[in-house]
Amino acid sequence: MNRTLISEVINNYGKTIMIKGWVHKIRKLGKLAFVVIRDRTGVIQCVMNTKLIDIKGLKLESVVEIIGEVQKKEGSDNEAEIWVNQLVTISAVIEDLPIEINKDNMEANIDVILNNRVLSLRNQRINAVFKIQAALAQAFQQFLTMEGFTQVFTPKIVAEGTEGGTELFELKYFERKAYLAQSPQFYKQMLVGSGYERVFEIGHVYRAEEHNTIRHLNEYVSLDLEMGFIQDEKDIMELEERLLIYMLMYVVEKCKKELELLEVKMPEINKNIPSMKLSEAVSILREHYGRIDLELDLDPEGEKQICEYAKKELGSEFLFLTHYPKVKRPMYAMPAEDTLTHSFDLLFRGLEITTGGQRIHNYSQLKDNISSRGLNVESFNDYLEVFKYGMPPHGGLAIGLERLTAQLLGFRNVREVTLFPRDRDRIRP
Amino acid sequence: MNRTLISEVINNYGKTIMIKGWVHKIRKLGKLAFVVIRDRTGVIQCVMNTKLIDIKGLKLESVVEIIGEVQKKEGSDNEAEIWVNQLVTISAVIEDLPIEINKDNMEANIDVILNNRVLSLRNQRINAVFKIQAALAQAFQQFLTMEGFTQVFTPKIVAEGTEGGTELFELKYFERKAYLAQSPQFYKQMLVGSGYERVFEIGHVYRAEEHNTIRHLNEYVSLDLEMGFIQDEKDIMELEERLLIYMLMYVVEKCKKELELLEVKMPEINKNIPSMKLSEAVSILREHYGRIDLELDLDPEGEKQICEYAKKELGSEFLFLTHYPKVKRPMYAMPAEDTLTHSFDLLFRGLEITTGGQRIHNYSQLKDNISSRGLNVESFNDYLEVFKYGMPPHGGLAIGLERLTAQLLGFRNVREVTLFPRDRDRIRP
Repeated sequence: MNRTLISEVINNYGKTIMIKGWVHKIRKLGKLAFVVIRDRTGVIQCVMNTKLIDIKGLKLESVVEIIGEVQKKEGSDNEAEIWVNQLVTISAVIEDLPIEINKDNMEANIDVILNNRVLSLRNQRINAVFKIQAALAQAFQQFLTMEGFTQVFTPKIVAEGTEGGTELFELKYFERKAYLAQSPQFYKQMLVGSGYERVFEIGHVYRAEEHNTIRHLNEYVSLDLEMGFIQDEKDIMELEERLLIYMLMYVVEKCKKELELLEVKMPEINKNIPSMKLSEAVSILREHYGRIDLELDLDPEGEKQICEYAKKELGSEFLFLTHYPKVKRPMYAMPAEDTLTHSFDLLFRGLEITTGGQRIHNYSQLKDNISSRGLNVESFNDYLEVFKYGMPPHGGLAIGLERLTAQLLGFRNVREVTLFPRDRDRIRP
Repeated sequence: MNRTLISEVINNYGKTIMIKGWVHKIRKLGKLAFVVIRDRTGVIQCVMNTKLIDIKGLKLESVVEIIGEVQKKEGSDNEAEIWVNQLVTISAVIEDLPIEINKDNMEANIDVILNNRVLSLRNQRINAVFKIQAALAQAFQQFLTMEGFTQVFTPKIVAEGTEGGTELFELKYFERKAYLAQSPQFYKQMLVGSGYERVFEIGHVYRAEEHNTIRHLNEYVSLDLEMGFIQDEKDIMELEERLLIYMLMYVVEKCKKELELLEVKMPEINKNIPSMKLSEAVSILREHYGRIDLELDLDPEGEKQICEYAKKELGSEFLFLTHYPKVKRPMYAMPAEDTLTHSFDLLFRGLEITTGGQRIHNYSQLKDNISSRGLNVESFNDYLEVFKYGMPPHGGLAIGLERLTAQLLGFRNVREVTLFPRDRDRIRP
């Protein structure tokens, strides 16, 4: 007999089927036992006569195989249950469970959840998070492929950092030193110039940041894209708007059950994302929130406040901030009027989830910009090469996958939406 | 005027359009100049009267914008060309090109090609390689998603190696040591046990192998999958068969032009992949190829020979080898009769492109197996945890993306099908 997935049980009324999964709940009532089984597609109640089926040794979370008949659950509209003929334990639990995972909401702090990651992932709500995250990544890939982008895989072992040495993890690479890439920035630009014009990458990036905050990880998944033949950063913003609509619609379509489990409130997505200059945002915060301390950038509190403002006054949970000053942007950012750049951030529900912009494509301008920051031009030679041989105007962006997931699903700490987070104190499990 | 992609020019006979791209070829004939322009979608000939359009400063590989009228090319069936009204250089080449890239076949050795990677990628044949590679990765993802797998992102910074310390790159992780993951093996098994049942990952893996061969890279992309509730390794082999058919069909559909450019001969894919025990393969090689030196494994030459045999005698360019001995497999491989395991390799055109098999799911058996190999059980505690709490029978496989690409497209050296390869001697560009 072939296995029937739990999501398919309801299509088998009156038939005898076999299911396999974990023991999710056990409840006894006289001679009857009600055992809820869980597989990757859901849960189902199995009813057994304990005179016929021995469940004395049965433990929560053991893996079992059950054969039984599908019946309509009494008093229910269209809910099925299984009347069990046979129960076999495939893989028994051999130690007491260290945490309780079968409640809807796990009442455990983040360290307990992460220390027992493999078990906590069996909790249905926690499990759902990463199905949604997978859908977000896949939607990113599908949309960009349709838009003529090529998916690329660029090296994470690099000879130099993109920003000249800070926040890099150092690696012993045979006889020499190497580093873990902070971002695919240089490579994606180089690949635009190598004729692909439009590239994207879904991959890990590494930041040796010392501080341990709820919005930082030392290893995270970056959804990166870069696009040639643009006018300016507005082309990138326009693309991101359509990209986000696609990603959100995709999740709504593919992860209905998961969104319900997590009681996710989706943002409105059928309208343009408002945009304001950083300087305007700073003025608004000064005027409406008394933030006289902000000048050239927002702090985490400022991001929350300007998003609150945007939601109330502009009716959007997304907000583009543009025209960041040069001093706050890397050396490759395309300069704009005065001391500004053709760059932007995208904030979502109080957190920056994207940084992007137009890049410099002129060789001399880029070289000068590198020197003027006191950086050593020679260490950028590999990167600079392509700019000598016909580099189109271009720009791009990066979305932090964990941040997007956290903001969409309403988690405060990015660790909760990372399967196995790496931070200042954690490299296990 | 909006840009028209070169692939779309043919749909615009008689119209005035704008194209953008790189100067691919320049040929002068009296007053006329024939300039071939290349963009991400192809090449097109542009005809200009040099009395009206100044091309004196025009260089190969400069980025230009051309406005002109689409005409049928004289003497051609349905080939278009553009009669140019206006040519503007957007981004000029400012140094002599170090390599010639516009011939069909680049006559340069692999080091020259890789040292000038960004330029060599502009060669149309080389460029096509990575479009096909992207399609392979995407097909892997699409097929497995349809089969109920969840895409996961597991950490590449790990506290221990999967095999206990050999061939690991060491990393300075703040105050401690960490390593780069050799494979997502442990994490994908743990995630099967965490309730996902079926997971896959597309990500980099790292091998600090000292030897520099044409089939090894120190950083490569592994297409990994793991699946719960299997009978044995045959379920995994059956899945891989269907997976490969899907991937190859996908490439045929999406990369027609690229396959033609590279003159790729696709393998026959509508039939079952033959399978033989490793011991049978060794006997065949002894008998038919005089390989009396082989015993428990094949060497690279043996892989070529058995594939030659399989093509001739079994009519397949793919070949499964099964029943590898325990001593040649990791501690997690499920033992089979005698000293063998429930594991397999897949060979394709003379090279191993997959290793897979069923894994041990019983906690005590796995623990004993670890000790019996002289490994320290404690260092596997994070991994072992899930085996105590209901681990279903499971197995999986990994496909080396670069190896698959190389074998499919007929490249000898995996470096040729890696955008920016990392090997014993190379971490640049």
